[in-house]
Amino acid sequence: MLVVAALGGNALLQRGEPLTAEVQRANVKVAARALADIVRAGHQLVITHGNGPQVGLLALQGEAYNPDESYPLDVLGAQTAGMIGYLVKQELKNALQDSRSIATLLTQVVVDKNDPAFATPTKYIGPVYSQEEAQSRAEKAGWQIAQDGDKWRRVVASPQPQDIPDLAVLKLLVEQNVVIICNGGGGIPVIRDENNGLQGIEAVIDKDLSSAFLAKQLGADALLLLTDVEAVYQDFGTPQAKALTTLTVAESQAMDVPAGSMGPKIKAAGSFAESGGFSAIGRLSDALALLSGQAGTHILGENTQR
Amino acid sequence: MLVVAALGGNALLQRGEPLTAEVQRANVKVAARALADIVRAGHQLVITHGNGPQVGLLALQGEAYNPDESYPLDVLGAQTAGMIGYLVKQELKNALQDSRSIATLLTQVVVDKNDPAFATPTKYIGPVYSQEEAQSRAEKAGWQIAQDGDKWRRVVASPQPQDIPDLAVLKLLVEQNVVIICNGGGGIPVIRDENNGLQGIEAVIDKDLSSAFLAKQLGADALLLLTDVEAVYQDFGTPQAKALTTLTVAESQAMDVPAGSMGPKIKAAGSFAESGGFSAIGRLSDALALLSGQAGTHILGENTQR
Repeated sequence: MLVVAALGGNALLQRGEPLTAEVQRANVKVAARALADIVRAGHQLVITHGNGPQVGLLALQGEAYNPDESYPLDVLGAQTAGMIGYLVKQELKNALQDSRSIATLLTQVVVDKNDPAFATPTKYIGPVYSQEEAQSRAEKAGWQIAQDGDKWRRVVASPQPQDIPDLAVLKLLVEQNVVIICNGGGGIPVIRDENNGLQGIEAVIDKDLSSAFLAKQLGADALLLLTDVEAVYQDFGTPQAKALTTLTVAESQAMDVPAGSMGPKIKAAGSFAESGGFSAIGRLSDALALLSGQAGTHILGENTQR
Repeated sequence: MLVVAALGGNALLQRGEPLTAEVQRANVKVAARALADIVRAGHQLVITHGNGPQVGLLALQGEAYNPDESYPLDVLGAQTAGMIGYLVKQELKNALQDSRSIATLLTQVVVDKNDPAFATPTKYIGPVYSQEEAQSRAEKAGWQIAQDGDKWRRVVASPQPQDIPDLAVLKLLVEQNVVIICNGGGGIPVIRDENNGLQGIEAVIDKDLSSAFLAKQLGADALLLLTDVEAVYQDFGTPQAKALTTLTVAESQAMDVPAGSMGPKIKAAGSFAESGGFSAIGRLSDALALLSGQAGTHILGENTQR
């Protein structure tokens, strides 16, 4: 099977952990072991990953050094794709311990400059703050902020993926059985301008939606959205909470899940399943079991082939 | 011809310019136009680039935000390869305005952990400072520093490239006529450890030596080392200064050129020419003329085929 596996931010960093290279590498090592199981089972693997905490940190580092020369989000996104893509590639190679080729590719994803998301930022990036500190930073740096759980964070625009200009190269490598790491941080956000061609734009594309889009474009068989919870829950946070093993696309669309939690994952999983693929949401450490249907929540469309 | 073209730091940033995204993009646009000429002339192109100013800046940004959680040079190098690789890819696509595939790949380059370069750092990174400021920063951040022209800069270890574990993927894409951008910043420096596989190490590999190594491994026909001077000069800086049009490998090896100026370029060009390739050093804007032998300094080995 051709499998697109999306690593959630939590796969790279657990909330509260410092965002050092050591911590990220240790988490990536664990992720790489789970992903290596999929490759060893004979599947073709395309790995994508988020970058919310990392892109926010790099923005803060730039502002701390020289706020007048800080980099826009497309450039910072490319930096995070370099950093995370390097760590994942290296640790996956070490976990596999074979001669298989693994490639990390920088991927641009085209968005619409008129996407309404630019007017209403929803994507959390960087660390969490108290409300007071978040407000003070927002005033100083021109951020928009929003509540995330019991804390506050910077939010940026998260437009819909429209096109992947680099798809031909990704397809070529998949055909040649190369394991690929791409679409880092949801892909580097660019717009297509009639006069100037491709241009970066200030945004962070949701990596789950972007991974579903990529999976469709690649004609993948399965989309795994890997996180740190075992499944989607009905009545999450209540005594009646119940892990769901299967959802139809219609059921997934009818669920009322807050954005910022499982919302984008369920939406992304539904959108891929609708196109005939098989989506699963669950624990990173269960990656292979998710694929064989023995763990997590599966979202199945009318035409989904298992 | 299969051409490896190495973009010098000066191709991305002229000395004294601020290292903003806008300045780098403007310089990359100019570089992309020159490189597009090579592609349009029907050659296969592999682009490499340096990262000295950029990797130094990212290190400074990290230290400014939180010195206890700053990233090691392999991770910072991967970030710069992401950033520069993204800009080059995007602007080359815009310069070519065709459907050709361009891929930016993160490239690890293996070095020997016992390389004597680790004891004697020579690679300049980051901005230039007055001697006093450089010394004060060196004490605070644990840097080693060295004179660079009439200023001072941080220096880091620059070990010899030994192996490119990702070569198979690069070859595959070259065979498929994909323009590739790889080996950014000389490649991400890693060591091969018998127990732990590949591991990042604190270094910045010289991008000219690394590009010559890559060109040999790929079996390239030509290596272009692109900078902001038109040629190698005899008696540079004196009234007798004379641009050299051709050098044999033996002549290039006999030249007494200070490290930090043309030294690594001449050494890299000689090492590739020795293996049978054709090397040229000259202006980025002359890229295509360099290839046809109408500009720059050409370094020819005994077996060099033109």
